[in-house]
Amino acid sequence: MNIQIEARNMKLAAPKLANTSIEQRNKALLMIADALENSKDKIFAANDEDMEAAAGEGLAMSIQKRLKFNEAKLADAISGIKQLVDLPDPTGRVLLKRELDEGLVLTRVSVPIGVIGVIFEARPDALVQIASLCIKSGNCAILKGGKETAKTNRVLFDIIKSSVIEAGLPKECLLQAQLHNEIDELLACDKDVDLLIPRGSNKFVRYIMEHTKIPVMGHSSGICHIYVDDKADTDAAIPVIIDAKTQYPAACNAVETILVNRKIADSFLPKLANAFKDNNVKMRGSSEVCNMLKGSFEVEVMEDDDFATEYNDYIVSIKLVDDVVEAADHINRFGSHHTDSILTTDDSASEYFTKMVDSAGVYVNCSTRFADGYRYGFGAEVGISTGKLHARGPVGLEGLVTYKYKLIGSGHIVGDYAGGLRSFHHKDLDF
Amino acid sequence: MNIQIEARNMKLAAPKLANTSIEQRNKALLMIADALENSKDKIFAANDEDMEAAAGEGLAMSIQKRLKFNEAKLADAISGIKQLVDLPDPTGRVLLKRELDEGLVLTRVSVPIGVIGVIFEARPDALVQIASLCIKSGNCAILKGGKETAKTNRVLFDIIKSSVIEAGLPKECLLQAQLHNEIDELLACDKDVDLLIPRGSNKFVRYIMEHTKIPVMGHSSGICHIYVDDKADTDAAIPVIIDAKTQYPAACNAVETILVNRKIADSFLPKLANAFKDNNVKMRGSSEVCNMLKGSFEVEVMEDDDFATEYNDYIVSIKLVDDVVEAADHINRFGSHHTDSILTTDDSASEYFTKMVDSAGVYVNCSTRFADGYRYGFGAEVGISTGKLHARGPVGLEGLVTYKYKLIGSGHIVGDYAGGLRSFHHKDLDF
Repeated sequence: MNIQIEARNMKLAAPKLANTSIEQRNKALLMIADALENSKDKIFAANDEDMEAAAGEGLAMSIQKRLKFNEAKLADAISGIKQLVDLPDPTGRVLLKRELDEGLVLTRVSVPIGVIGVIFEARPDALVQIASLCIKSGNCAILKGGKETAKTNRVLFDIIKSSVIEAGLPKECLLQAQLHNEIDELLACDKDVDLLIPRGSNKFVRYIMEHTKIPVMGHSSGICHIYVDDKADTDAAIPVIIDAKTQYPAACNAVETILVNRKIADSFLPKLANAFKDNNVKMRGSSEVCNMLKGSFEVEVMEDDDFATEYNDYIVSIKLVDDVVEAADHINRFGSHHTDSILTTDDSASEYFTKMVDSAGVYVNCSTRFADGYRYGFGAEVGISTGKLHARGPVGLEGLVTYKYKLIGSGHIVGDYAGGLRSFHHKDLDF
Repeated sequence: MNIQIEARNMKLAAPKLANTSIEQRNKALLMIADALENSKDKIFAANDEDMEAAAGEGLAMSIQKRLKFNEAKLADAISGIKQLVDLPDPTGRVLLKRELDEGLVLTRVSVPIGVIGVIFEARPDALVQIASLCIKSGNCAILKGGKETAKTNRVLFDIIKSSVIEAGLPKECLLQAQLHNEIDELLACDKDVDLLIPRGSNKFVRYIMEHTKIPVMGHSSGICHIYVDDKADTDAAIPVIIDAKTQYPAACNAVETILVNRKIADSFLPKLANAFKDNNVKMRGSSEVCNMLKGSFEVEVMEDDDFATEYNDYIVSIKLVDDVVEAADHINRFGSHHTDSILTTDDSASEYFTKMVDSAGVYVNCSTRFADGYRYGFGAEVGISTGKLHARGPVGLEGLVTYKYKLIGSGHIVGDYAGGLRSFHHKDLDF
């Protein structure tokens, strides 16, 4: 398979998919759901092969768990598709309607982006979810999943693709890349691929960002912070911090650094350290923090530059700050603009924090782990973006559309306006 | 000056500017307007020097005209600033408000992008307009203008910057790059510059796009088309085509290729050729077009690949197609996704065209030259984007903002939801 030729054909077919009706796209989704249900044996058999290979290679149990595709995960995937069917069409929405002059009407209408490349971690449910989101939003997609679930992915993709064709969508609308070298071929398709969404490790995402001219949506690192203000309810603070650190440490929205207001450090730090110890979280901290906890707790000393570290593990950085101003400054310097939270009962501190912290998510009195498309009520997400262009934060269907301007006239020419014969009146119309 | 250090400082100061009130930003704009008015002599003196140098170097008169900054242009610039003051604040707008669960409220609010780099052609009014748009939208800006107006730019920039500081905005919010090698330094600031907007020649914009990891908004080429359908009002078609080609041939929204339905070619082509001849437009065409016009008109024959050409001049490409389907296909293959127009009285043809042509602007019965922020009623534009991410088409204030998510809780943790103790109810709230 030559990815560049396939991508070119896909690009030229993209307007056809973009202009299918939402009924057709929903029908395709329902046919996928049925086909998955009817092909479970085949899917589970392929997944067993992937699981055996993973066990043979001695992959960590936490990773093996992620590769597994069983009855429960299939049921979740199918229910996810059905929820997606119920969501409104993100395309074809009129966003602006304006009469520029008598008989000259401008309309801005949402349309699919076109061709989207998604490179994702080895997790079979990700393939189903991403393909479904792209179909719902009328986008053609090139999918490349992690190699550890290659066999499961192939079976799932074939089921999805034949359902989609059977439902009458253009045959070019989905493509699976299976070889690792095809990733580099895909990165070179900047003429035909409109958007790349890489998911996976920090290093992998950074590689993608650095080796393509295609716009990339996503995040390489998730260095999230919690700042415990001097006006925080310190009892309520502990469970929020422990949730943010330990509920799923490998997630990008897990907290990595705790900033504590110096005024409450004496009383709060030992409580915090106890909670971390109880939850098997290894502590690292500034020399000031180390000195305060010395004797009672094990804390590894760290340098300033080290605070830009994402652990994705049961490890945490701790530092003291003077106030919310210093906290926000630290976060803007060392963070990754993903999600940061302040714990406080002081409205002026939380207002300062949410205004001045330059991140996709700025939280007050809750865990950073809420940064997620499902929890935000977006139905599902293709990823979380720390960039500021297009979509920011968790990206659902809305992030998979752009818009075009339609201008309808009757022989209107610019010369008449430049020459003063006519003038614009810019009257917004109802829609 | 070290651009990287300055960009870093600007990035860290960006939240301060972002959180100034709209009253403060409007006040700064009005102070700029006054200061420009009060400094005309200084501005015109600097411009005279630039103009003399341009004449000395024998620059084309059309370019010299663009460099000129006189009473009329100053008045336009000042009136543009005042119009901008009257526009609503694009930041701080609530875009979504949703109760995820009891006491856990998510708000999406528009915020400035942060640090924007704009590299623009030698045109003094561009500097005033771009700086004003960035201030209005709360964005820090690094500005680099064309060298042919270096002296005028320096004077204008100093006036703007001191007004802005006097109005109480952060001193880091504006920076002028003056040396050509500073462009490359700017391109390397991907950690601190959130968005680059390059304007100028095709080649220059492509250079920028290929040499930076900063997201770029803009367009390298503007290969716009007009398709004359067999159901077109052919008398009305001629002035639209002539307007699109000749009203300002150097603009990106000028038409480059005319596609004519084969069924009307016999009668329409000679009329079209006559009009082009009368307007001193040089014709190039497929061999079919050349054969049909042979004897009566001079038409240079061109190959298929040659249709992806932007002339920016009194030159046009002409080709025959079977129908709107072939026209849309040609445009999607050879165009630059900028602005394309169909001339027809057939609603089904215009509907097909506006749906299937994958461009920022899809027009019916009007000139491609309408693609412009001012004509769309956006107040002003920073540029026109042919990309599909973030803003598309003419980009005004709205394209200079992003959003952040605020989530306010009272000790909410994800573990409670994962464990089934609580569940989301996703209730949209009024705002």
